[in-house]
Amino acid sequence: MSSPLSARRSQIIACAVNLANTGGASALSMRALAAALNVRPMTLYYYVPNKAVLLNLIVAEVAEQIAWTSAPESPRDELVSHALDVYQALATNSWIPDVLRASTQAGAPPILVAEPFIASARGLGFAEADAVGLWRATWFLISSQLQSLGINAGTTPTVQAPASAEMAGLAVYVRALIDGMIITTLNSERAEICDLKEGLNPRRKLLHPDVGCQSCSYSRGDPAKPPF
Amino acid sequence: MSSPLSARRSQIIACAVNLANTGGASALSMRALAAALNVRPMTLYYYVPNKAVLLNLIVAEVAEQIAWTSAPESPRDELVSHALDVYQALATNSWIPDVLRASTQAGAPPILVAEPFIASARGLGFAEADAVGLWRATWFLISSQLQSLGINAGTTPTVQAPASAEMAGLAVYVRALIDGMIITTLNSERAEICDLKEGLNPRRKLLHPDVGCQSCSYSRGDPAKPPF
Repeated sequence: MSSPLSARRSQIIACAVNLANTGGASALSMRALAAALNVRPMTLYYYVPNKAVLLNLIVAEVAEQIAWTSAPESPRDELVSHALDVYQALATNSWIPDVLRASTQAGAPPILVAEPFIASARGLGFAEADAVGLWRATWFLISSQLQSLGINAGTTPTVQAPASAEMAGLAVYVRALIDGMIITTLNSERAEICDLKEGLNPRRKLLHPDVGCQSCSYSRGDPAKPPF
Repeated sequence: MSSPLSARRSQIIACAVNLANTGGASALSMRALAAALNVRPMTLYYYVPNKAVLLNLIVAEVAEQIAWTSAPESPRDELVSHALDVYQALATNSWIPDVLRASTQAGAPPILVAEPFIASARGLGFAEADAVGLWRATWFLISSQLQSLGINAGTTPTVQAPASAEMAGLAVYVRALIDGMIITTLNSERAEICDLKEGLNPRRKLLHPDVGCQSCSYSRGDPAKPPF
């Protein structure tokens, strides 16, 4: 009890994740957690006010463990792969959909915070609010897909790779959402104008604003050549 | 009992919607519904096997009542307005978010079927599977937004217009998703090439494929002028 609040809370969350890993989401009661921590329920409530908060903390904890895929050559692809990283990390734990459903039912649908996604969106030129909004919409797609997966309550939790067909399906719509936001929100004039001059399909460039023009010799890092 | 299954079911759903309208989602138990219908619970279960099915039927019923906004001059805008029609119809009933959350918790997240949306998407050139997939992803955005609204269990249900800020926020991402799918999935070459020839920003045309080219004299209905 001498450790600060956050340290104690980390301990509690680690214990809760452990409970879910061994017994599934249904094993996650405040009572069972207090017993596993060897504290009285009232003590637990001091750190975690209710089950909805507990479930949100667990989802945040899983997010902490995500190994982010990097695709620095294309900021747009990086956004897509960050989104799929989140889906993959969550879908790997069979009890996560149950936790998301239970949180939603409790009136506190968790929004997992994907800092790398937001940072990449900022790097692509999105304003803070748009970057956050784009992540929120992307998370809606991810979490809805997760919540449409089967119920695992009562069964032995498993850790397995998510179905690749589901991943591929999700990727299509995440990519479309991101592309749509790039096109409608970002000022991508430079790449567009460059491609228009070349008489090219402007789509290719829009989605790779950092690589310069592939047909003319303009490249971002080439100071000798003015942009247009 | 002499009426066919579907007629009896319609009666049951109407009664359930009535229960929700007067007592909120929490008033929707199979027992209370049986009592309101003046039948034994076992009889009710014959028509509606469980509560998850009941909740899905109710959402489908609300969808039946939607007055679809038409925007025939732009198929893309029509898709957007169909999506917002769905959000508006559902958000108007304060108990709908609770019903969606309860369905999700029961492991059967409802996917409201928006036939006009799918028909408009087909008209725009999407293949059947892509039209259905686009609707599903759009529904993920709509239903997640609805489920993030407050819990109304126990409070008196209200019927009121959804907050316009939420509508506007949702519209941004629905529009981006649709635009992204139009650009990445549809073969929009014709409009693009036409605009490229004119040295115009190709985006405008992409999103209004039916109106012909606004700068050259090509119009869809003009047989004297070959497309390109």
